[in-house]
Amino acid sequence: MTPEDERWTESCSSPVFVHNPHLEEMKDDILYHFGLGTGTHNLPAMFGDVKFVCVGGSPWRMKSFTEYIAAELRMEDPKSEYPNICAGTDRYAMYKVGPVLSVSHGMGIPSIAIMLHELIKLLHHAHCTDVTIVRIGTSGGIGLQPGTVVVTKQSMDATFLPKFEQVILGKTVVRNTDLDPSLAEELLQCSKKLNQFETVIGNTMCTLDFYEGQARLDGAFCSYTEKDKQDYLNKASEAGVCNIEMESSVFAAMCKLSGLRAAVVCVTLLDRLNGDQLNNSQDVLHTYQQRPQILVGYYIKEQLKKMSRS
Amino acid sequence: MTPEDERWTESCSSPVFVHNPHLEEMKDDILYHFGLGTGTHNLPAMFGDVKFVCVGGSPWRMKSFTEYIAAELRMEDPKSEYPNICAGTDRYAMYKVGPVLSVSHGMGIPSIAIMLHELIKLLHHAHCTDVTIVRIGTSGGIGLQPGTVVVTKQSMDATFLPKFEQVILGKTVVRNTDLDPSLAEELLQCSKKLNQFETVIGNTMCTLDFYEGQARLDGAFCSYTEKDKQDYLNKASEAGVCNIEMESSVFAAMCKLSGLRAAVVCVTLLDRLNGDQLNNSQDVLHTYQQRPQILVGYYIKEQLKKMSRS
Repeated sequence: MTPEDERWTESCSSPVFVHNPHLEEMKDDILYHFGLGTGTHNLPAMFGDVKFVCVGGSPWRMKSFTEYIAAELRMEDPKSEYPNICAGTDRYAMYKVGPVLSVSHGMGIPSIAIMLHELIKLLHHAHCTDVTIVRIGTSGGIGLQPGTVVVTKQSMDATFLPKFEQVILGKTVVRNTDLDPSLAEELLQCSKKLNQFETVIGNTMCTLDFYEGQARLDGAFCSYTEKDKQDYLNKASEAGVCNIEMESSVFAAMCKLSGLRAAVVCVTLLDRLNGDQLNNSQDVLHTYQQRPQILVGYYIKEQLKKMSRS
Repeated sequence: MTPEDERWTESCSSPVFVHNPHLEEMKDDILYHFGLGTGTHNLPAMFGDVKFVCVGGSPWRMKSFTEYIAAELRMEDPKSEYPNICAGTDRYAMYKVGPVLSVSHGMGIPSIAIMLHELIKLLHHAHCTDVTIVRIGTSGGIGLQPGTVVVTKQSMDATFLPKFEQVILGKTVVRNTDLDPSLAEELLQCSKKLNQFETVIGNTMCTLDFYEGQARLDGAFCSYTEKDKQDYLNKASEAGVCNIEMESSVFAAMCKLSGLRAAVVCVTLLDRLNGDQLNNSQDVLHTYQQRPQILVGYYIKEQLKKMSRS
């Protein structure tokens, strides 16, 4: 046990784990894609109080979430523009309001994986404890009314198996994609209290491609029929898949490895059984995209109330 | 043969192919992640003259490339700010100067694949012909002086095989990752004429992850030793791998399928045999990142000179 491990044990709080003996030997750690580092930034001072991390694909959406949560928590600063903490790079955007960190991750497993490696190291270097992390995203639904919010039970691959395959030194390692079931249930209860939109708990399929990988008929290439597509999506539905996106599997796997309490909350922008193109108006799509923010914002507010009482 | 196919054959010019019979049946095509569409934009008028497309991960870098190429081609407009054609979305950024289109693609195979599906459809809808496409990117080198530019011969996977695996309806389809050998050779000759930095032709390994997937010792998780890492990179080197990045395989596969003449030109930011962290100064890294732009800018200028003579 290192002195640091002992400190965490004594305080009964849950740290953010890295599993890399080499990190201890490094003088500095450059978090390149954040434009941050242990040698250039005081990470404990900047991030030590973080208790909630919300991540999503679009940088605009993560800035808008920050503005929303600041207002909800009555922490808004009318003079402040909520500066992008990662302003030195254009790979990701990061914002912070009180104990809530908001980070964009781009699209797809590789993009979110780079962000999570550096985020987990950041939270570790900053000595954060008891952190809850939620991905608030968009997805295609299967058999759900567009605008329904799905809280992920299990993240599944394109063959409907709950696993994530990580290639290490050219060999495939299979990782578990379990998410925190109690957190999912708490989020569902929050949605019931809010009573503004439909929320369900279900499985989420995570693919490496948006067009052929999700059986869309509208990509540059398509070698299958409408019937092939419907058969595939129906099989997914039989395996409990409620929605399809592109980041949940590696998110679940990496959060589990690092001891972060994690959830995936995605709104469905369309019902894939009825089409492939996102042809709703921008206004409607924008309203849908706010729903995961509203749900997670409500959850965070409730949690902070509980913490202040205890 | 459709009337459109006949038109291309008669004119002896090479179109951009889509392989999707469903597209013909669609009234409109929404290119969602570009914020463009056939029903809302006159794509032939906006893009019909495009002959060169340059793509790269970072939106800032693709804007800077546009400014650079505008100056090189003496097409700069002192009043113009080179507006982002995809301003309606923050998923990708797109700029155009004369016959040169510049598009960002984010990080990783899924992110560039979404962009390429929509780009190939865009070029097809715009009736573009004889298009050359180049990815100008960054990479980690193996045994090369940092700052060396690598023009990719073959894109290889993490087991050093020249293939890309696309999952379609849950089944894996293997695609060829050949790039245009004559274009690679022309780019090498351009570099010799320029004589500003070292350029080599070699194989490029394309991975799904930046940390564990590239045998880095500085991720949040690492279960192998420095010796394991060196053994893996040495095996890659024996297979002809000169550099490692995260987009070339799907780029090569999709460009080949659509008949685009394609090249991958990446600068190496570090020698992975000597380390994992990007600890050079921002100035040095910035200078390195300009090299693919300079090389491809020179190539485009030479090609346009030839076209104007013929």
